Amino acid sequence: MSPSTPAPLAFDPTDPVALTQALVRCASVTPTEGGALALLAAVLSAEGFSVERPVFSEPGMPDVENLYARIGSEGPVFVIAGHTDVVPPGDLAAWTHDPFAAEIEGGTLYGRGACDMKGGLAAMTSAAIRYRRENPDAPGSIAFLITGDEEGPAVNGTVKLLAWADARGERFDHCLLGEPTNPAAMSDMIKIGRRGSLTGKLTVQGVQGHVGYPHLAQNPIRGMVRLLAALDATPLDAGTEHFDPSNLEVTTLDVGNPATNVIPAQAKAVFNIRFNDLWTPQTLSAEIERRLCDAAGNAVRYEIVFEPTNAVAFLTQPGPFVTMVAEAVSAETGKRPALSTTGGTSDARFIKNYCPVVEYGVVGQTMHQIDERVATADLVTLERITHRLLATYFAAAQQA
Amino acid sequence: MSPSTPAPLAFDPTDPVALTQALVRCASVTPTEGGALALLAAVLSAEGFSVERPVFSEPGMPDVENLYARIGSEGPVFVIAGHTDVVPPGDLAAWTHDPFAAEIEGGTLYGRGACDMKGGLAAMTSAAIRYRRENPDAPGSIAFLITGDEEGPAVNGTVKLLAWADARGERFDHCLLGEPTNPAAMSDMIKIGRRGSLTGKLTVQGVQGHVGYPHLAQNPIRGMVRLLAALDATPLDAGTEHFDPSNLEVTTLDVGNPATNVIPAQAKAVFNIRFNDLWTPQTLSAEIERRLCDAAGNAVRYEIVFEPTNAVAFLTQPGPFVTMVAEAVSAETGKRPALSTTGGTSDARFIKNYCPVVEYGVVGQTMHQIDERVATADLVTLERITHRLLATYFAAAQQA
Repeated sequence: MSPSTPAPLAFDPTDPVALTQALVRCASVTPTEGGALALLAAVLSAEGFSVERPVFSEPGMPDVENLYARIGSEGPVFVIAGHTDVVPPGDLAAWTHDPFAAEIEGGTLYGRGACDMKGGLAAMTSAAIRYRRENPDAPGSIAFLITGDEEGPAVNGTVKLLAWADARGERFDHCLLGEPTNPAAMSDMIKIGRRGSLTGKLTVQGVQGHVGYPHLAQNPIRGMVRLLAALDATPLDAGTEHFDPSNLEVTTLDVGNPATNVIPAQAKAVFNIRFNDLWTPQTLSAEIERRLCDAAGNAVRYEIVFEPTNAVAFLTQPGPFVTMVAEAVSAETGKRPALSTTGGTSDARFIKNYCPVVEYGVVGQTMHQIDERVATADLVTLERITHRLLATYFAAAQQA
Repeated sequence: MSPSTPAPLAFDPTDPVALTQALVRCASVTPTEGGALALLAAVLSAEGFSVERPVFSEPGMPDVENLYARIGSEGPVFVIAGHTDVVPPGDLAAWTHDPFAAEIEGGTLYGRGACDMKGGLAAMTSAAIRYRRENPDAPGSIAFLITGDEEGPAVNGTVKLLAWADARGERFDHCLLGEPTNPAAMSDMIKIGRRGSLTGKLTVQGVQGHVGYPHLAQNPIRGMVRLLAALDATPLDAGTEHFDPSNLEVTTLDVGNPATNVIPAQAKAVFNIRFNDLWTPQTLSAEIERRLCDAAGNAVRYEIVFEPTNAVAFLTQPGPFVTMVAEAVSAETGKRPALSTTGGTSDARFIKNYCPVVEYGVVGQTMHQIDERVATADLVTLERITHRLLATYFAAAQQA
């Protein structure tokens, strides 16, 4: 199958394994569409969804294709969100299976995006199609909010797609985002929030000189070590009811001085903080600035710049919708999943501004790795869980 | 004047200013000879010196030309040592005078190598020629030990030239090395020793991971900060009678991780220690290893590698020769110079294995800088000091 000419009718789109295979075979490395959105568009159109394919642009960045689909004209609107773009496969020779062949061996489907997140997206799409086929007169609407820019800068993706939909008058009631939330088994974890992310760039200025004349120079590395030790000396907090403690990691520290007899002029470090609901980017950056200022005294000349961030900490409060998702998982897996806020950021940080969002998907163990893979049985389970959730959700809506 | 065809007879080589100009006009950036050694060879040959031009090689490095000259066949042998190679001029547009034109303006001679150390070498050469012209039957010998590889790797230079001369049966009694030792005025400083230099490369191993999952990773930057803070926590020593305290400077620290959401796998630092006569490279590396081991405990995985070094700390004990140099300086400048061991390393660290060595030259303020320069009056003073030293030295030899 050529990725640029998908043949959606060659398989039944209610088969989550076949649909995952078809999506994995589209080499949609960010920002390339690779045929993945075209395939989804064809599949959903054939089932009666109205499909839009907005393309978003930003100066200096590649254009990115997106997809919005909806079936039904009334509320409530249940949104299935996700992305078809994938990270690069890396060293092709290290893969035991072609990363874009979607081969199945021993019940495991191999390929880039298998778990992050073409598998999750396919299973939810299959479930939505099956539910609508079985319930053509179901109340409410099902919408798809799919981007091709989640793994990249995430500028021309979900954040613009949400604004675009909002401008058209689209209103969403609840959202299920299909990121791979499970550490090891399908019953493990749903995510009801995410920590925020704040990145700071710290520069310490010294005075360049010869190592033989240290009194004529000032080594910025000495100051940098002092500042970084101070940032690490005291925990930011002890965590909250639903969140782990906030955590700072220095991600790089670079001087780039090749001369072993020269004291360098400058040292640069970058750190990233994953923070919980005790902080906003504003209060957190103020705390970091306070710590740096205290540690520097008059001895260290430094500059701190925080990158703008839209990754604030958020929580979808446990309540009826969260319970509905958790119960769909436990009904199909026999175990109640944990309600977690761990891990990295996701497009949920944008969606939460429009409606409550819960994340659930397949097992994410191999995401971004060589030999990324998903158990075909997990795809079937996720299709069943999503189908059960849609049925419960719209039944509740009908009763309300 | 073309650098490849020097015309030594166009000026009187007892004029230190003219000889400095002629040398500066040879663009002898390491490892290029640039005509500088050929010029010296022609000048010295014309005065009756026997001149040799050994070329030394090392796999993977450029060949380097050197010069050995001697007049006289008896002892004592007074050696004038130095180098004709210079560091690159850097940004040519930033120079107010062509770095290889040796222009004189207001009593200042501008050019790369003017103070480090073509000026010093020229003044000493002029003095030796004048002394021998005035004293054709002087006792003892004057030798020149000149390299073209002092500013570079210093592998095919003085260290090999000394071994080469030694193998030919050449024995040296005392050496004057013409490095620019004076911070501000000709009466400031002679150097009677140098600190040693030891370079260590420290690697801290971590476990790469996503910043959102810090419990699955181990940040090597945290360990590196801890180790570097420990190295800096306690002074290595308080200095000795003739030496400053030993001093450690971290010269670079590099991670090179472009991803702000990734905890890196490894951090690397390089440090250099200038150490005094309380240490050898062996005892010092053992002390550093002890400090690292104590600070690391079981928490930090690291590797430390010390580069081989031939820069051990050494002292030419104050005594008759040192006194003779100091008195020649004070007789011509009116002030007694300090006896110092400060600053970087020099080829004196190789020469001291063959004979006592003292360093003295012009004012080094602008060495390696844009607009490197020397006062023409200082060149005249240095010629007089060297002449006085040679006269005193050989008069003493005659009396002994």
